[in-house]
Amino acid sequence: MTASTLYARTNQRPDTTLVTVGRTVFGGPDIPMIAGPCSVESYEQLVTVARFLRNLGVNCLRGGAFKPRSSPYSFQGLGEEGLMLLGQVRREMGVAIITEVMSIEQIELAEPHTDCFQVGSRNMQNFELLRALGRQEKPVLLKRGFSATIEELLNAAEYILLGGNNNVILCERGIRGFDPSTRNVLDLGAVAVLKQRTHLPVIVDPSHGTGQRSLVAPLAKAAVAVGADGIIIEAHPTPEESVSDAAQAISLQELENLALQLVPVAFSVGRSLLLEPAGYSQPV
Amino acid sequence: MTASTLYARTNQRPDTTLVTVGRTVFGGPDIPMIAGPCSVESYEQLVTVARFLRNLGVNCLRGGAFKPRSSPYSFQGLGEEGLMLLGQVRREMGVAIITEVMSIEQIELAEPHTDCFQVGSRNMQNFELLRALGRQEKPVLLKRGFSATIEELLNAAEYILLGGNNNVILCERGIRGFDPSTRNVLDLGAVAVLKQRTHLPVIVDPSHGTGQRSLVAPLAKAAVAVGADGIIIEAHPTPEESVSDAAQAISLQELENLALQLVPVAFSVGRSLLLEPAGYSQPV
Amino acid sequence: MTASTLYARTNQRPDTTLVTVGRTVFGGPDIPMIAGPCSVESYEQLVTVARFLRNLGVNCLRGGAFKPRSSPYSFQGLGEEGLMLLGQVRREMGVAIITEVMSIEQIELAEPHTDCFQVGSRNMQNFELLRALGRQEKPVLLKRGFSATIEELLNAAEYILLGGNNNVILCERGIRGFDPSTRNVLDLGAVAVLKQRTHLPVIVDPSHGTGQRSLVAPLAKAAVAVGADGIIIEAHPTPEESVSDAAQAISLQELENLALQLVPVAFSVGRSLLLEPAGYSQPV
Amino acid sequence: MTASTLYARTNQRPDTTLVTVGRTVFGGPDIPMIAGPCSVESYEQLVTVARFLRNLGVNCLRGGAFKPRSSPYSFQGLGEEGLMLLGQVRREMGVAIITEVMSIEQIELAEPHTDCFQVGSRNMQNFELLRALGRQEKPVLLKRGFSATIEELLNAAEYILLGGNNNVILCERGIRGFDPSTRNVLDLGAVAVLKQRTHLPVIVDPSHGTGQRSLVAPLAKAAVAVGADGIIIEAHPTPEESVSDAAQAISLQELENLALQLVPVAFSVGRSLLLEPAGYSQPV
Repeated sequence: MTASTLYARTNQRPDTTLVTVGRTVFGGPDIPMIAGPCSVESYEQLVTVARFLRNLGVNCLRGGAFKPRSSPYSFQGLGEEGLMLLGQVRREMGVAIITEVMSIEQIELAEPHTDCFQVGSRNMQNFELLRALGRQEKPVLLKRGFSATIEELLNAAEYILLGGNNNVILCERGIRGFDPSTRNVLDLGAVAVLKQRTHLPVIVDPSHGTGQRSLVAPLAKAAVAVGADGIIIEAHPTPEESVSDAAQAISLQELENLALQLVPVAFSVGRSLLLEPAGYSQPV
Repeated sequence: MTASTLYARTNQRPDTTLVTVGRTVFGGPDIPMIAGPCSVESYEQLVTVARFLRNLGVNCLRGGAFKPRSSPYSFQGLGEEGLMLLGQVRREMGVAIITEVMSIEQIELAEPHTDCFQVGSRNMQNFELLRALGRQEKPVLLKRGFSATIEELLNAAEYILLGGNNNVILCERGIRGFDPSTRNVLDLGAVAVLKQRTHLPVIVDPSHGTGQRSLVAPLAKAAVAVGADGIIIEAHPTPEESVSDAAQAISLQELENLALQLVPVAFSVGRSLLLEPAGYSQPV
Repeated sequence: MTASTLYARTNQRPDTTLVTVGRTVFGGPDIPMIAGPCSVESYEQLVTVARFLRNLGVNCLRGGAFKPRSSPYSFQGLGEEGLMLLGQVRREMGVAIITEVMSIEQIELAEPHTDCFQVGSRNMQNFELLRALGRQEKPVLLKRGFSATIEELLNAAEYILLGGNNNVILCERGIRGFDPSTRNVLDLGAVAVLKQRTHLPVIVDPSHGTGQRSLVAPLAKAAVAVGADGIIIEAHPTPEESVSDAAQAISLQELENLALQLVPVAFSVGRSLLLEPAGYSQPV
Repeated sequence: MTASTLYARTNQRPDTTLVTVGRTVFGGPDIPMIAGPCSVESYEQLVTVARFLRNLGVNCLRGGAFKPRSSPYSFQGLGEEGLMLLGQVRREMGVAIITEVMSIEQIELAEPHTDCFQVGSRNMQNFELLRALGRQEKPVLLKRGFSATIEELLNAAEYILLGGNNNVILCERGIRGFDPSTRNVLDLGAVAVLKQRTHLPVIVDPSHGTGQRSLVAPLAKAAVAVGADGIIIEAHPTPEESVSDAAQAISLQELENLALQLVPVAFSVGRSLLLEPAGYSQPV
């Protein structure tokens, strides 16, 4: 069996696949941002973030309703209530929603309220979930497992593509390392390798990749410089009060500062940061 | 929150929990073996293994009907047909069956044919699957993730116990390492730590832990010596013809040799290898 | 003992330490490059590289005379003959030389021919070597060990500073990982952490960090974007003929292309790539 | 170049090489123990340990005079004074001494006082040190680096053998891992691989391999069961007062208990624990 057989659908081809989430295109020359809280906490929280994002020109809001927490005693997410809140903000504010699903049943629950399904690191090889996502049409944001090889990540994507859904965005979010100085080791070499091996868009999550607020900006810049097709950031109106991942969430003001810093970095590698403030595009 | 809150149900208590699979008890002074092929391939294959196991005195047969394969192009298991074959051999030969489930739906499918559900490394943090297994009564063999910490493994078990099912057996099967000399790094230190931190039985899988046939016996002996409560081995009537994991499967004769080698090692640490040839117990 | 006691000399202080190698300053707003072959092979090789570097405006040439090779049967470097060649090219071409030393004895041998001593990853915790380098004045390029934590790297630097030599440049060059897709995992998060924790300049080696020619440019860009104070690159007149590390060496033309690509990236993060073609500075 | 060329001297041959330290033979059917404190602290400390070891029948005493400490502010060992104390106890008590050297100069200093030179993990690829040890005759205990592959360990040994010294004992002491539950991950699979690939004796250090007193005994048993040719243990008259590695040192009484536990494990794998109380052998 040759390598091209192994990755019949994810391997190299002339052009990058364009994956559209809401009205945002991933995989083209422009580099979109995705931002939002780790967990959906309240309508007020979501609408504050969404309004800020729209003014900034970021159209993709991430937020978890179902949270895969290591401990069953940690906050598990608002569940269906959280989905409703995401759906409400999506309708009211016109932002595209990206939310995680952890089981086949949750796909159906989340479907009316989301524009893109996220598969988290812990479920990268939950093959039944991948197959189910391959049988529907909405885009899938597939995060690399804690210690998954690039080959395993591509093979996981292959499960989705094989079902007929080509709308897969890969995401590097840090691998497990030995040094407690950072939560994970953001593997930007993997991003460069992926850009050579697959036509799928590859984005980077510097929030989980470092686990520390103060490291998000430098690593986001590095991710853009290395060739990432997008950046996903945990941002929160009051980060220190975040019910989960508080140490790595940045404030909305810091998010704006970061976006402004990413603009020249994107230009320096021949691309543009995709910022479309509300007025520039279709009205809400 | 204190450590004892974190692991309300898996943490230390005076006695080891006894988990019974078929008529085999895990967690007591005797050390049972589980053996069988990676994948269910045919009735002939299974019945050959089951007959051999019964003569040897091993009462737990492992075999995968649903196979979590990195690539969608690899053999995916016989699925429901495989479950039927397991169920048939279970009835005919009186062996207890341990088989992997990868989704909630598969729990229902497998339930009539198995005595114990296996959760594989890739699904150790598939929390919806864990919760579903917590809502039923059959034992669960929970394998440690490729790069899961001990805390994460215990928390994963906690998801099952929290549902009301205390019949959880933990399994160390090797963690991801940097040296291609072995498929994984069998972390026997983790077994010793687990024996201090939890009352749940802890078994070891030297087949996946090494990935090489010739290393299975020495590591199985080490596992017994370190204090494991059981050993799970990939064995196949014709290992080199195994449709999956051929490099690490041992032959049935090698399995018998291994069992005979483990007998004195178990004695040397004050325990016994549990070998109950068919004649010694209830007839089939 | 507090953290500031632990790193009495390497920890944070208002300004970055400036370390001067030849006439090149590391740690200031400008970002210098270091380039050259893995091993010194011949005068012709070195002078070709040196002439190219000077025309490009890169003033630091790296090249190994003593090579720390995993196997004693691999090419071990030209030794003292290699040092002579480095010294000759240094005098003739006016480039600054950076070369590795693996023992105290080699410090003395290399001293007349080099401007900066490199301590390789394998010797990051060769404390006697570090102490000896602390007792002399020339700058030291200290590479992070294969699996050294940031704390260990800083403590290794502390051995040198404690001897009275503050001219230490730290270098991230990739840590050991589990994925054979890249030779090492370039840990750019560590660079961001180091920039917060120490006043010493921090440079990045994307050649060893990836082990593959085609990945050097994207990772070099990422390194500049993340905040590195310099970049060290393996470049060779005929990379495929390099006696060591052939897979990761880039050609001189590729080096020039890379430098031109790094210019805008450096600008995008408020810095400049330091390129001083011969005519701009003192004559040779 | 074939594999047998790569390891011309360390690779498989019919018999295990016997390496003799003092009067203790490593690599034969008997399994010796080495024990002693991390650091030499005083004459009283050493003589107490030596007397205990001799009564127990353990003839090899380890103790560090030169200590490779991550931080220069940690206790660095008694240096030459420590060597003198080791030499004194060696003469008075007839125990064989194993002590670490970190530079070529220290080889000469330690030579009159030791029976075996230890190369620590941090210096496994200090090739100049290895070469120097290859040019003398005393045995070398070569510890595996924190993240060295088996191939790299064998190649490091090859540097010593190539110089003409075949008296090399390899030591697995744990590799760097991601789980803070243990200090290192003791890689017993590597021991089994080494026993297949080389004729050199392979011993195990469960003290550094786990970093915790309570884990030393179970891992020592596992090491014997997996096929180790010896065990090296950190033991101290008053472990909690040890100036270094206090958490992993066991008391002398615990050492005796451990030895008694290892006796049946060694028998269970067809070997014997080498215990020769003073009266049984030649008088001091």
